[in-house]
Amino acid sequence: MTTLTYIEENKGKFLDELLALLRIPSVSADSKFKDDVRSAAEFIKAQFEDLGTEVEIFETEGHPIVYAEHIIDPMLPTVLVYGHYDVQPADPYELWDSPPFEPVVKDEKIFARGAADDKGQVYMHIKAYEALIKTDSLPCNVKFMIEGEEEVGSHNLSVFIKQNKEKLSADVILISDTHIISNDTPSITVGLRGLSYVEVEVTGPNRDLHSGTFGGVVGNPINTLCRMIASLQNEKGEITIPGFYDKVEVLPREYRDQMNLAPFDLESFKNDLGIDSEKGEEGYTTIERTGIRPTLDVNGIWGGYTGEGAKTVLPSKAHAKISMRLVPNQSSEEITELFTKHFKEIAPNHVKVRVRPHHGGEASVIPTDAAGYKAAAKAMKKTWGKEPIPTREGGSIPIVALFQKELSLDSILMGFGLQEDAIHSPNESYGLFNYYRGIETITHFYQFFTEIK
Amino acid sequence: MTTLTYIEENKGKFLDELLALLRIPSVSADSKFKDDVRSAAEFIKAQFEDLGTEVEIFETEGHPIVYAEHIIDPMLPTVLVYGHYDVQPADPYELWDSPPFEPVVKDEKIFARGAADDKGQVYMHIKAYEALIKTDSLPCNVKFMIEGEEEVGSHNLSVFIKQNKEKLSADVILISDTHIISNDTPSITVGLRGLSYVEVEVTGPNRDLHSGTFGGVVGNPINTLCRMIASLQNEKGEITIPGFYDKVEVLPREYRDQMNLAPFDLESFKNDLGIDSEKGEEGYTTIERTGIRPTLDVNGIWGGYTGEGAKTVLPSKAHAKISMRLVPNQSSEEITELFTKHFKEIAPNHVKVRVRPHHGGEASVIPTDAAGYKAAAKAMKKTWGKEPIPTREGGSIPIVALFQKELSLDSILMGFGLQEDAIHSPNESYGLFNYYRGIETITHFYQFFTEIK
Repeated sequence: MTTLTYIEENKGKFLDELLALLRIPSVSADSKFKDDVRSAAEFIKAQFEDLGTEVEIFETEGHPIVYAEHIIDPMLPTVLVYGHYDVQPADPYELWDSPPFEPVVKDEKIFARGAADDKGQVYMHIKAYEALIKTDSLPCNVKFMIEGEEEVGSHNLSVFIKQNKEKLSADVILISDTHIISNDTPSITVGLRGLSYVEVEVTGPNRDLHSGTFGGVVGNPINTLCRMIASLQNEKGEITIPGFYDKVEVLPREYRDQMNLAPFDLESFKNDLGIDSEKGEEGYTTIERTGIRPTLDVNGIWGGYTGEGAKTVLPSKAHAKISMRLVPNQSSEEITELFTKHFKEIAPNHVKVRVRPHHGGEASVIPTDAAGYKAAAKAMKKTWGKEPIPTREGGSIPIVALFQKELSLDSILMGFGLQEDAIHSPNESYGLFNYYRGIETITHFYQFFTEIK
Repeated sequence: MTTLTYIEENKGKFLDELLALLRIPSVSADSKFKDDVRSAAEFIKAQFEDLGTEVEIFETEGHPIVYAEHIIDPMLPTVLVYGHYDVQPADPYELWDSPPFEPVVKDEKIFARGAADDKGQVYMHIKAYEALIKTDSLPCNVKFMIEGEEEVGSHNLSVFIKQNKEKLSADVILISDTHIISNDTPSITVGLRGLSYVEVEVTGPNRDLHSGTFGGVVGNPINTLCRMIASLQNEKGEITIPGFYDKVEVLPREYRDQMNLAPFDLESFKNDLGIDSEKGEEGYTTIERTGIRPTLDVNGIWGGYTGEGAKTVLPSKAHAKISMRLVPNQSSEEITELFTKHFKEIAPNHVKVRVRPHHGGEASVIPTDAAGYKAAAKAMKKTWGKEPIPTREGGSIPIVALFQKELSLDSILMGFGLQEDAIHSPNESYGLFNYYRGIETITHFYQFFTEIK
């Protein structure tokens, strides 16, 4: 039986198995889901055991890493597949049309937290591997490293990598955790932004106060936090942190023009999001703003009374989670330091400020002349019948920069999601077309990569 | 037996009864405490029944009103006592040293939500009345109107008042819901600020988005809300809403100088609150800032991911609760309209804004030459041995302005709390000294008021 026939005949089974994995609420950011995260790891491990593949679960200080490998011949090239089985928190739950961890298939899409990011995409790799094994068609060596902390910064994975460089030796890293332009327009992500993520706490009085008795006399930490956050960007949408742009690469006009050739319809973009106008840094197009420019977003803010009704309190504290997306050459650690220094400097003396760094990661760019890129392009051309377009994405997969640094390996970002998959949002979904098309394309990748190498 | 002897002999009983009332979590702002609010009303009603006093519970569209009256002789003056048995929400619960609704007596203070605001103070009136009845010493007619919605704007009380002007006819209204300067320095509040309270919602995209994929392209409602809030006040701490100050009375230099004679130690004020510097409108002292100037405070803010860890979300919505304290001549309704109009005008076109008004109330000033003020001053002089100082407080008791408007009656704000009682905050407390001194002083008030009238 050919690999493609096997895939065709097992579509139902492949779907049922993915739904089972999606039922496990493996939210890595929230400790109350710790056991579920482990269950997801055990689920992945069992997949390889069923195929008779060597597989281990590596314990870390956080969530475990599943590692499997199948060496058919040391002389053949080796593909290291990376992915993650952890997911983003699912709240706000009330905005989901169906419960985030009770997957449903509707309009040819799977709706569940993690459907596209990244359970659905990592599972394509496991099924593509199964198809190749069951049909004796695996053309090269494969290694799988599937972690449970991607959504919280992959700290323990980076430790694991530094300790296992030998074991992880390979010719290329293959990752499916990105999206294509559309189901008619395949694309491969060649650029990713880095990330610096901090949590700030602004403290005014040592206790909550009555806003009548003290309002107008004692500095309000919420008003103050708002002023401080507002001052981090100017009218042009530029970030005002001294030194923030110092290392941002200035790309030639031609490069930017080429980027802007990628199909993009601003009107449908605005309609899809329900906004009257887009908003970003002056002097750049929407594609450039996410592809080659850094940015700053408040991801969460809280303070004072947020319950029902009206409470006249002048609170003691206000908090915010703030993240900055970075571009190549900006150092996550350095930007976090610049932010911290600046944020403390702009704090008025009626408040005290604390800045706590969360995870970060470096931006990266993948060369389009690498063997891995060529193999991915050929594989997509074979399934789609057209050349994929190289794109730069606004998101971050910090681990990609780490792979380049620690293992000196390129990562090929052959993702199959769509921008409308609503990853990190309520009603995340993943298309059945994308799921099956991905499995098929991945099997071709192994073939082409072995030939090119 | 004299009234004072009765009070002296029943201190233990008076305390136990108050603690029982404080155990009822009568939080009017939160519907899940609806039944407890009613229990508190029933508790108050039972007090009057035990004394054989005519008492009724009036149902409203919200929480009930307890009304009692004792007419000994229509020719004698009548004192209408007003107070409230509802309390502010107790959260954040984790900051309480002992549970808010399990009162404890420590260091000569009662710790519980509502101890000072207003259960402890309203209960002084019931016990002063009891002492006068039990010793056949009530010198005039009394009426009691005790409501359960003061902390949420007294809307239904204002309806009740408009419908019962006849029943409520009196010569003066007596209220204990304010504080004195210190236990050594008695004072009477002659000025209160008004209040305008709104809740705002800023909506960006129609769903939460991945801050990597969309950050820098789609306007972030939290960043935007922060900019909008920051713009509501300028560097001088002045409110920038057009027309906001139009009706604010400009008080003569002499009046301000006289205000500033009230004892106030900025250093101990800052030490008590744990702040390095106070913060307020330029050109005014701390006493002036709360007494005669309006202000704007964010009482609560929320949006995006506020849980554990780091979630890279660009949220769909951000919210804030914002209140403005007003001074005489500013209309709460008009200020709410000015705020709403301005807030919508400053909203950039990448967001949609909704403004929902909560309760409000007018500021008020009480003349020091009124019979009620004189009686209160004499009563305090009798128990303290020194003249009380007239002060203006920053808080709001909107009902006072309503009493002036609907019943053309002055309200005498003879409160016995202290600023450090931490009302509206965790660990609210009320001193035993203040509780017993209040009961005693109130009995004198009736005597002096009857003589002066």
